[in-house]
Amino acid sequence: MARPKVVESIKEAARREADLPQSHVARFGPESPLKLDCGISLSPYQVAYKTYGTLNADKSNAVLVTHALTGDQHVANEHPVTGKPGWWETMVGPGLPIDTTRYFVICSNVLGGCMGTTGPSSMNSATGRPWGVDFPLVTIPDIVRAQAALIDHLGIDQLFAVIGGSMGGMQVLEWAASYPDKVFAAMPIATAAKHSAQNIAFHEVGRQAVMADPEWHGGRYLEHNAVPRKGLAVARMAAHITYLSEAALQRKFGRELQDRERPTFTFDADFQVESYLRHQGSSFVERFDANSYLYVTRAMDYYDLAADHGGVLANAFKGTKTRFCVMGFTSDWLFPTSDSRAIVHALNAAAANVSFVEIESDKGHDAFLLDEPEFFATARGFLAGAGKARGLPEAEG
Amino acid sequence: MARPKVVESIKEAARREADLPQSHVARFGPESPLKLDCGISLSPYQVAYKTYGTLNADKSNAVLVTHALTGDQHVANEHPVTGKPGWWETMVGPGLPIDTTRYFVICSNVLGGCMGTTGPSSMNSATGRPWGVDFPLVTIPDIVRAQAALIDHLGIDQLFAVIGGSMGGMQVLEWAASYPDKVFAAMPIATAAKHSAQNIAFHEVGRQAVMADPEWHGGRYLEHNAVPRKGLAVARMAAHITYLSEAALQRKFGRELQDRERPTFTFDADFQVESYLRHQGSSFVERFDANSYLYVTRAMDYYDLAADHGGVLANAFKGTKTRFCVMGFTSDWLFPTSDSRAIVHALNAAAANVSFVEIESDKGHDAFLLDEPEFFATARGFLAGAGKARGLPEAEG
Repeated sequence: MARPKVVESIKEAARREADLPQSHVARFGPESPLKLDCGISLSPYQVAYKTYGTLNADKSNAVLVTHALTGDQHVANEHPVTGKPGWWETMVGPGLPIDTTRYFVICSNVLGGCMGTTGPSSMNSATGRPWGVDFPLVTIPDIVRAQAALIDHLGIDQLFAVIGGSMGGMQVLEWAASYPDKVFAAMPIATAAKHSAQNIAFHEVGRQAVMADPEWHGGRYLEHNAVPRKGLAVARMAAHITYLSEAALQRKFGRELQDRERPTFTFDADFQVESYLRHQGSSFVERFDANSYLYVTRAMDYYDLAADHGGVLANAFKGTKTRFCVMGFTSDWLFPTSDSRAIVHALNAAAANVSFVEIESDKGHDAFLLDEPEFFATARGFLAGAGKARGLPEAEG
Repeated sequence: MARPKVVESIKEAARREADLPQSHVARFGPESPLKLDCGISLSPYQVAYKTYGTLNADKSNAVLVTHALTGDQHVANEHPVTGKPGWWETMVGPGLPIDTTRYFVICSNVLGGCMGTTGPSSMNSATGRPWGVDFPLVTIPDIVRAQAALIDHLGIDQLFAVIGGSMGGMQVLEWAASYPDKVFAAMPIATAAKHSAQNIAFHEVGRQAVMADPEWHGGRYLEHNAVPRKGLAVARMAAHITYLSEAALQRKFGRELQDRERPTFTFDADFQVESYLRHQGSSFVERFDANSYLYVTRAMDYYDLAADHGGVLANAFKGTKTRFCVMGFTSDWLFPTSDSRAIVHALNAAAANVSFVEIESDKGHDAFLLDEPEFFATARGFLAGAGKARGLPEAEG
């Protein structure tokens, strides 16, 4: 029976989150509730985070990395559940574009997540049961508010940079719009200022897949010692297709069969791409909470920065002094470069300091997590220039 | 309880299929088994079909219309289950491009389907139970073989034209490749000579969604008086996104909320696009069999016409005398126009008579089912020219 193992692995992960000395948790009690967009004040709550490098004396070298839908705070260290490398080990580390010998890097698990920050799998202190679907809906601004509370808690007045891709990029935009004086430089990557109809549609398919699974138990599966494995796996499979380009799928798999000469004429995974997707689905279930998947996809769907500023995106950035570096990837069809251009257009209209690079890649949306030399060089160059302007010492060598 | 109702509606549909005087069923007994690509000989089997118009004296005006994944024979009449208009009423009828006053139009339900042709919901005469997943896997060539048996049964030596879009277009290509002397003209629309890795991936998500539903009962749900409604609805939702372009979704729905001023901060269908998709999923379940969905998607995945001809697509059409009209739609990302161009390239290499039109449309794959004047005009013109060459009387007026 794999099912109890998964429940245990979620509990175990939460326990390890709380216990591991290199993992930090900021706790916010009744004196500092989090006011959510839905109208509810969440209290108490906690934010789990990781740091890398050293905060300098004047606290001017802090970089906040914001994670994507299914990411977490383990940006540059072995993941405590999967044992895999950090999700952005190509980008964050000594000598890498986000250089941990120069910057103090902070990455926190988002509100609504499942790696130690308060979310639907957390205990609701009012009931003594897991929140489940009683957890209030959270938005990207709510997620950023919780991060701002963490940054305050760390005594940092201004972040040198906020950097993130995909949903992480939405958080970057929200930081720049809501806390302009706290963000010296901003790097939104492969993202959009609002979620498109097609993206909402794909998320809705994923949510319906989870909720169709009887093991979801109306969102109270933890109390039934169950996990909606199959539904969550289907959701992940559908989403995973959107992270890759057609060209990447063609190059990686094409119509190749796995370990057989000819099709089996059954519903087995004959094609390599089927086997790959099934693996993506089943391994995801081992590390991610199904309700968190519902909440965080919903936060993305609700995001529409222009709508929050009278329908004009440029208004979100009026008077900003933040320097922006916007990047998109040509084969990304989840957040096409037209979304990046809309952000750049608004920043230009707000007379912001902005550079924009459209990176040639056939790897689709996931390109921002992969080895893309032009992407790394652009990030490195932008941060070096911003560091100089901020008065940070130049990189050695 | 909606569940038994659905089972009844499937049975009822089958009964009506058999009884309705305007619906025809060709039955093939032990003397004429269908040899399938998987190696099995299927016998007995039957093909349900509809006809429109009148076969002329020399039987030279027969047009076979081949349907797409979830289509059926009800191309130009009210659907017996849904009560909706035929799926190609814009294209097939008196005075329309496929003019039923000039042509004798035949449309049959595909092998593996669920509207009267033998498929997984049919009775297995060897066991007295529905076939379920004991039904042999069928391929596009198998589907065309069953159609060829029907055309023989109707005493027609050569079809004036074979016309179809999407999976229907695969059948058109297969007809032209396997029965070149029986096809005077061929019109493959919005289709491909092989299914891409991305398309296989989407189909696999749909199949996993169906099979994840405990009501699927290992494929034996009919015997449990059950239907995997939720799984099939999720499959349909995911697939439906691929039928529309991002632009069409944006134009139709954008981020509009349905019947509310602001989001509910729940998992209700706040956005119109969510409500639309849920409706697509739930209404599909009322008219389509879940196992047929597995079988017919699999047939598409397996399709690779070049692979059946030594890896060279042009070989499939060597020496052909058929006239081809290939059409694709610019915003179709399921069967992009590059797939059409690959077909045209092969036809050119085989020195075939081919015209190719890439139709400007922002409606995505579904454009072939919608009101697209350039598409209609091209189809009408091509058929008029082919009719002249075939010696059919010219259209009146």
